[in-house]
Amino acid sequence: MIVVLKKGADEEKVDALKQELTHMGLQLHLSDGVNTSLIGLVGDTTEVDAEWLSALDVVESVKRIKEPYKKANKDMHPKDTVVDIAGRKIGGGFFQVIAGPCSVETREQMTEVALDVKKAGAGLLRGGAFKPRTSPYSFQGLGDEGLKMLLEAKKATGLPIVTEIMSTDHLPLFDEVDVIQVGTRNMQNFQLLKELGKVDKPILLKRGMANTLEELLMSAEYIMAGGNEKVILCERGIRTFETSMRNTLDVSAIPMLKSKTHLPVIVDPSHAAGLRFMVEPLTMAAIAAGADGVMIEVHNNPEKALCDGKQSLTPQAFSDLMSKVSRTAAFFGKDMQEAGE
Amino acid sequence: MIVVLKKGADEEKVDALKQELTHMGLQLHLSDGVNTSLIGLVGDTTEVDAEWLSALDVVESVKRIKEPYKKANKDMHPKDTVVDIAGRKIGGGFFQVIAGPCSVETREQMTEVALDVKKAGAGLLRGGAFKPRTSPYSFQGLGDEGLKMLLEAKKATGLPIVTEIMSTDHLPLFDEVDVIQVGTRNMQNFQLLKELGKVDKPILLKRGMANTLEELLMSAEYIMAGGNEKVILCERGIRTFETSMRNTLDVSAIPMLKSKTHLPVIVDPSHAAGLRFMVEPLTMAAIAAGADGVMIEVHNNPEKALCDGKQSLTPQAFSDLMSKVSRTAAFFGKDMQEAGE
Amino acid sequence: MIVVLKKGADEEKVDALKQELTHMGLQLHLSDGVNTSLIGLVGDTTEVDAEWLSALDVVESVKRIKEPYKKANKDMHPKDTVVDIAGRKIGGGFFQVIAGPCSVETREQMTEVALDVKKAGAGLLRGGAFKPRTSPYSFQGLGDEGLKMLLEAKKATGLPIVTEIMSTDHLPLFDEVDVIQVGTRNMQNFQLLKELGKVDKPILLKRGMANTLEELLMSAEYIMAGGNEKVILCERGIRTFETSMRNTLDVSAIPMLKSKTHLPVIVDPSHAAGLRFMVEPLTMAAIAAGADGVMIEVHNNPEKALCDGKQSLTPQAFSDLMSKVSRTAAFFGKDMQEAGE
Amino acid sequence: MIVVLKKGADEEKVDALKQELTHMGLQLHLSDGVNTSLIGLVGDTTEVDAEWLSALDVVESVKRIKEPYKKANKDMHPKDTVVDIAGRKIGGGFFQVIAGPCSVETREQMTEVALDVKKAGAGLLRGGAFKPRTSPYSFQGLGDEGLKMLLEAKKATGLPIVTEIMSTDHLPLFDEVDVIQVGTRNMQNFQLLKELGKVDKPILLKRGMANTLEELLMSAEYIMAGGNEKVILCERGIRTFETSMRNTLDVSAIPMLKSKTHLPVIVDPSHAAGLRFMVEPLTMAAIAAGADGVMIEVHNNPEKALCDGKQSLTPQAFSDLMSKVSRTAAFFGKDMQEAGE
Repeated sequence: MIVVLKKGADEEKVDALKQELTHMGLQLHLSDGVNTSLIGLVGDTTEVDAEWLSALDVVESVKRIKEPYKKANKDMHPKDTVVDIAGRKIGGGFFQVIAGPCSVETREQMTEVALDVKKAGAGLLRGGAFKPRTSPYSFQGLGDEGLKMLLEAKKATGLPIVTEIMSTDHLPLFDEVDVIQVGTRNMQNFQLLKELGKVDKPILLKRGMANTLEELLMSAEYIMAGGNEKVILCERGIRTFETSMRNTLDVSAIPMLKSKTHLPVIVDPSHAAGLRFMVEPLTMAAIAAGADGVMIEVHNNPEKALCDGKQSLTPQAFSDLMSKVSRTAAFFGKDMQEAGE
Repeated sequence: MIVVLKKGADEEKVDALKQELTHMGLQLHLSDGVNTSLIGLVGDTTEVDAEWLSALDVVESVKRIKEPYKKANKDMHPKDTVVDIAGRKIGGGFFQVIAGPCSVETREQMTEVALDVKKAGAGLLRGGAFKPRTSPYSFQGLGDEGLKMLLEAKKATGLPIVTEIMSTDHLPLFDEVDVIQVGTRNMQNFQLLKELGKVDKPILLKRGMANTLEELLMSAEYIMAGGNEKVILCERGIRTFETSMRNTLDVSAIPMLKSKTHLPVIVDPSHAAGLRFMVEPLTMAAIAAGADGVMIEVHNNPEKALCDGKQSLTPQAFSDLMSKVSRTAAFFGKDMQEAGE
Repeated sequence: MIVVLKKGADEEKVDALKQELTHMGLQLHLSDGVNTSLIGLVGDTTEVDAEWLSALDVVESVKRIKEPYKKANKDMHPKDTVVDIAGRKIGGGFFQVIAGPCSVETREQMTEVALDVKKAGAGLLRGGAFKPRTSPYSFQGLGDEGLKMLLEAKKATGLPIVTEIMSTDHLPLFDEVDVIQVGTRNMQNFQLLKELGKVDKPILLKRGMANTLEELLMSAEYIMAGGNEKVILCERGIRTFETSMRNTLDVSAIPMLKSKTHLPVIVDPSHAAGLRFMVEPLTMAAIAAGADGVMIEVHNNPEKALCDGKQSLTPQAFSDLMSKVSRTAAFFGKDMQEAGE
Repeated sequence: MIVVLKKGADEEKVDALKQELTHMGLQLHLSDGVNTSLIGLVGDTTEVDAEWLSALDVVESVKRIKEPYKKANKDMHPKDTVVDIAGRKIGGGFFQVIAGPCSVETREQMTEVALDVKKAGAGLLRGGAFKPRTSPYSFQGLGDEGLKMLLEAKKATGLPIVTEIMSTDHLPLFDEVDVIQVGTRNMQNFQLLKELGKVDKPILLKRGMANTLEELLMSAEYIMAGGNEKVILCERGIRTFETSMRNTLDVSAIPMLKSKTHLPVIVDPSHAAGLRFMVEPLTMAAIAAGADGVMIEVHNNPEKALCDGKQSLTPQAFSDLMSKVSRTAAFFGKDMQEAGE
């Protein structure tokens, strides 16, 4: 961290600052120029508050050199984390496909889709019981009833399940859930992240629609700082000026995240563009860019889906996609464990 | 709402769709062209799910004409809502200044600042006890201890207080709080919004950093649909490509929101740019554009502030600003009740 | 195109509007509801000015249904355009790699890199003589001297060349250039586009950093409307909030553009992220998503490069990449003609 | 400028770099930490290419401390520049209103509007002869014929005129034009900026829709580096995610630009939102935030306007606005010379 001092800053105040920084256990490297004086801070600056520093009267600006996250940082943990979900591995060369409907609608639908996606080769099952919707008048999910149907589908297929949490209040209901998902609108719901840091389950953390990768990693750090290091990052499309699709998949996030963190990175091509015909090319691009998995919406009757039917694949289309996914993952050197192996 | 049908769409399916729409109580206006067939939907389309419609096989696209919010809509409620907070009115020509520190730090600081801002003419007191911070290693607020200090400052000054809630779990602690604030990162924390719909207190709803005005109004609608119609909207800067300041204040949001809703609209110039020297010009711009109030950070020792000191005014600077605010609000025809009147 | 009329609009004015639209050769489909009256316009609406319409007193809003471009539209021209550049085909299943330095620096550098990229299998040679730089104090390119060096490299290798034009004034210098590139900052330099519409050479049109795909296609339409239909579209990264890389490659643009236009779509992974280690994964993602080619910066001494050295590959790294590109293009069913075939 | 060296960087290469930087006339301040070594560069770093530096093998990153512009920098020129246009002063406390139609349509229209805006108190006349339009099928302006009509209106009223240039080819036609405007899409048309640096006329430089303020100042620097220091900056709305209006006026740009540069800053509230009812509140906000002028579209028959009629005021509405502008400018301490004084 570099602290740029103001021209003509009060010397007494600068000395006080230097003392304070030394007390924080940091080494100081001073550099005085004609126009600019700098203090280089050496040591663990993760907990130094850059905003506090930059508010000081004598400080012109503050520049971070090291990333402000520790546990999520690849530097501290060079080996890729492999998250194991009931035997399904993700990360570190292992690739998983998570599939299922956007929302759980009926017992029959859920179990039928679950059997279909298992047959097609998916490794995990997804389904939404608590649904974040922009409008209070849209279908909000079946809640705990939906969760029960999802658990039945889990029993029927043996597939581990992934489902979204919307409030810490619901945590007791998630006992038998295998992976807890944090949705894009809750990426910076810090209270929720803190609670999930105390849970002993993998967390699938979706990137906020307009958040930077550093912010995503800081949110992962919230969970990890609480003691839960099983975090799976998920890129699901960012908000841009484009209007022909819902969001813009940020494929660059994959190699960039992988250069900065040891955590697995997966992609949700269904929510990204929000359009069925885009799911296949975006899935292929995600694998080619190095993703550790994809999460795909499948519905046995997309036209009757109570949410996001526009982007859901039929079981047949999903099965066709899966054979391409298998070949492509293999081509790019990924180990894709078959469900049930 | 206009439904554009696909060229050559299956007639049977189109008929089924028409029946379904009619059953929903809508009138249908059909228009068949050489290349395009349209169905115009007349009636209350607020609860028609545009995503569901656009997912149908026979549907090319769906265009909304009416806004998807009802209770927040000016059409339904042409008279401006005036929110009354312990006698302080906001909206419909009444203008309020909310002031105080970003976060509550000590009993002394809080009461001192409270007395200062009251003296300078602020109508409401703000202070953060639960602080949403990007990093888990930054100061997170004093929590319920902070809330107690804020309540003491309320007692000492008689000023009603505004403070942020971060989780439904904390709701019992907010009994004596006058206005509950929802922060920018929680604008789409729908579970929280639903709970606040059941509360009988004004809610100050901050716009998300990358959210549209329609999304802001839909979030207000969540609260209002629950029965709580006392919502105050707050523009606090949006994320743009600019790097010289933290966020970009969207002054246009004021007249645009006022053309669409009857709810009061205030502005937070302190968080917008995040820079002390910008607070005055942005406050002036907000008043000139028609805002119903501003929310300003004041700290008795900005350099020692545990968060956002860079943007906080000293009590003296705030007092100077207040005299400009009074004159300017009067110039633009606003009724600015003095505290204690 | 649908014209939504204002509630209670003056009937005489509406009649006048209807007459005007009929005179423009359009068929009108009327639909009167309780709250909304619509006019559906059937016929060629490409030349109907939506802004003019929406400015009318009686008009509430205007919604386009058909895209406002004709010649670039896939509907009008379902077969993919194959652009032939001195025997190198691009589009319609043919894939090309364009490679070379960001800017031409010396005769030796240019020819050396040209021989290197040819040997590695590139189909076309790139090099900048006129360089758009944000700062007037940065290296601006060698201009016509640089162009001469590029032409010598063309002679030495037989590779067709691609280079950027920055002003219509320079057009006479581009006689022996094979493909004229329009840079991202000139995508809406309409005067330049009009002039290029009169040229009988392929134009490589780069997407503006913050432009929509429709705007890109409208800019292609400018060139095509002038008579030059050999336009190659290039996605090169868009501006987002991310700060860890220069721009964000929009891989989704590839399948979306291909659903809307018959023109070839290539990708520039070097400029997108602006970082060497990202070139390979982004190239792979581009091929996987269906791109018709990639454009890659290669420099024989990236550290001494006068511009964009941070993203340039060494000839050796490029050669390694090319063997992956060949295998991957083949895997995804692209026909990649070897240079010199 | 601070150069952060890579951990374990080759010492020989670092020495070579140090020599090179010293040869550039810079003083070097070294600071070696356990994890990070820095070189602080002291002297005129404006012409040091940060991209070149950051591409070097031994360099981790480069952080600028000083702005990369010189002539536009307030540090170098603390006194505000006052641009004098045929006696009308703008900047340094002087405020001007520029008004007229978006595009010149007929001799009668142009002269009529010109007489109207003069009567209402506008200081300068605007009108577009060369129009940048997204679609090649939209009205492109009357070109040199339009310019002639504008010059006639100038003669009829005595008002100096402002009009947009789209290509260096047209420069000879601009002899009698008082202020040459560079449009938002040409803000980084560097060839055009260079040519305008040789002209002895004020240049009104509009900010690009997705450009940072630093980029705007670098474009001003292009003109100033060529010798023409009479640059007027214009904020005209930036692209955001908001869809209810065309663009989002960035009012914050006014105080921020004024803290960085001595050049005058004006605002175009008509193009910003693109909606008539927003012109007044945005004009008021611009004055309140410290703008040196505004540019407003006026049309004698907005409904028949060939472009942007939706945002044009009638002469009567403009006259009403002008009386508010006069009072508000006076309230905020601006000297608004009456036309013809």
